[in-house]
Amino acid sequence: MSEALKEYLSVCQNRVERALEQRLPSEHILPQTLHQAMRYCVLDGGKRMRPMLTYCTGHTLGIAPEALDGIACAVELIHVYSLIHDDLPAMDDDDLRRGKPTCHIAFGEANAVLAGDALQSLAFEVLANDPSIVVKPESRLKMLITLAKASGSQGMAGGQAIDLESVGTKLSLPQLENMHIHKTGALIRASVTMATLAKADIDPEHAKKLDHYAKCIGLSFQVKDDILDEESDTATLGKTQGKDKDNNKPTYPALLGMAGAKQKAQELHEMALENLSVFGKEADLLRDLSLYIIDRKH
Amino acid sequence: MSEALKEYLSVCQNRVERALEQRLPSEHILPQTLHQAMRYCVLDGGKRMRPMLTYCTGHTLGIAPEALDGIACAVELIHVYSLIHDDLPAMDDDDLRRGKPTCHIAFGEANAVLAGDALQSLAFEVLANDPSIVVKPESRLKMLITLAKASGSQGMAGGQAIDLESVGTKLSLPQLENMHIHKTGALIRASVTMATLAKADIDPEHAKKLDHYAKCIGLSFQVKDDILDEESDTATLGKTQGKDKDNNKPTYPALLGMAGAKQKAQELHEMALENLSVFGKEADLLRDLSLYIIDRKH
Repeated sequence: MSEALKEYLSVCQNRVERALEQRLPSEHILPQTLHQAMRYCVLDGGKRMRPMLTYCTGHTLGIAPEALDGIACAVELIHVYSLIHDDLPAMDDDDLRRGKPTCHIAFGEANAVLAGDALQSLAFEVLANDPSIVVKPESRLKMLITLAKASGSQGMAGGQAIDLESVGTKLSLPQLENMHIHKTGALIRASVTMATLAKADIDPEHAKKLDHYAKCIGLSFQVKDDILDEESDTATLGKTQGKDKDNNKPTYPALLGMAGAKQKAQELHEMALENLSVFGKEADLLRDLSLYIIDRKH
Repeated sequence: MSEALKEYLSVCQNRVERALEQRLPSEHILPQTLHQAMRYCVLDGGKRMRPMLTYCTGHTLGIAPEALDGIACAVELIHVYSLIHDDLPAMDDDDLRRGKPTCHIAFGEANAVLAGDALQSLAFEVLANDPSIVVKPESRLKMLITLAKASGSQGMAGGQAIDLESVGTKLSLPQLENMHIHKTGALIRASVTMATLAKADIDPEHAKKLDHYAKCIGLSFQVKDDILDEESDTATLGKTQGKDKDNNKPTYPALLGMAGAKQKAQELHEMALENLSVFGKEADLLRDLSLYIIDRKH
């Protein structure tokens, strides 16, 4: 990872951690167990990949991080709620997430369902209400529509449904890609789109390029995840290694071979960079981020 | 039920059924099973109590039903998602809802989790985007904040958490009331509040009275539900009878006795009417609705 990106991510990670902490209900407010569960799952964990994308897109467009905290939090709250529900026994049945027991292991299944539900509501509340977002109400509504679509049955939740249906079946490459475009790609694109909506006078062509960039790195992120799931050990990953293979889930390495998967990640990275060619040095963080996504070790 | 209310509810029930049908993704759109599950749970069922409240409040304020369809759908989508998740094995573990198999019985647990999740997203999408809502963006944002708060950890989801924690414990009357104020009351109040937000020039005092009305009937609805759960049979109820008692859940009849519970419902009805005293005949539907809530047989 470049030094510039490393420093920026570190600053933004602290920033979003604090912003999330401030926006989550205190553990002392009733119902306490639910609020404990929500805070346990959201705080002090994860790469914060989606908030980082929001901040780095903002940096490219000259939007101050202060104006992006609400967006960054909203998108991360949606992401965390989806992890909690994905980990449930009826879904992926995972015990370990971000290096600690999953929500239903720590707080029981009922609280895990409710914590996820409440985090989704909170995401929309933050996006609709947060004073950090200083755009016209019309633009804020566009952000809300973007996040709702990205989260719903034709976005993330739909991708998860496709994923569940495809366990044990042979997916073609386009089918696998379609699943990922929904399951993780939609929210990753929303992280970028919402940042572009925070700029009143954005060139529509620039917004489009950034959206395409997001589409590319959304996929490369997933390809790399599949590669890591096969190559890393559980301790490095912070979640159970080899899980996808054991579950007979379709993966890029399974379809393309390990070398093919790595080449695919590289190609997506190059397409991502191409879409940034309309920008100057101000997009270097996004360029470095794309490289980091396919180079990371966990 | 008065003839006027009967006719109005029948018209509005058809209206919201059609409006929901139009706003739900088709069963032919991928992922099909998820969309089937969503439609199965939302369509052709339920009293549509919350949408009815929205329309009746609109009638009181002179707002056309056409301008309330998006609000009515949003609030019902949240309600249905909460029923799907409440029925899950890890929660209330119910097999029967609205006279048919619950979502996880019909579509499996994973699809039930996801259908609920996607319905919540859809609710916010509809509220943010639906062309039926013809208010200033600022008012629409207030509706979104209202619905998000009413759904979240200090609203409906929080009430469900309190409910789960209280199974098998002795709740005092204030604790039981606090649970219901969150679990069902918050969304019922939101159904009314969002309708008041659809009127640009509403007298704040009128909005406040309507909110108090909603608070009263939200509670009387719950008191009556507890009474029915004990007195009705499963066929009439459309869900498993005596479930709350069997689960050792705290109820109004358990705390106040059956006569005390009935008196409580009556008192809440009278308080509801008091709050409508600032309105003329235009609030008769709301008056009749309050009476119906405590008189209904299922």
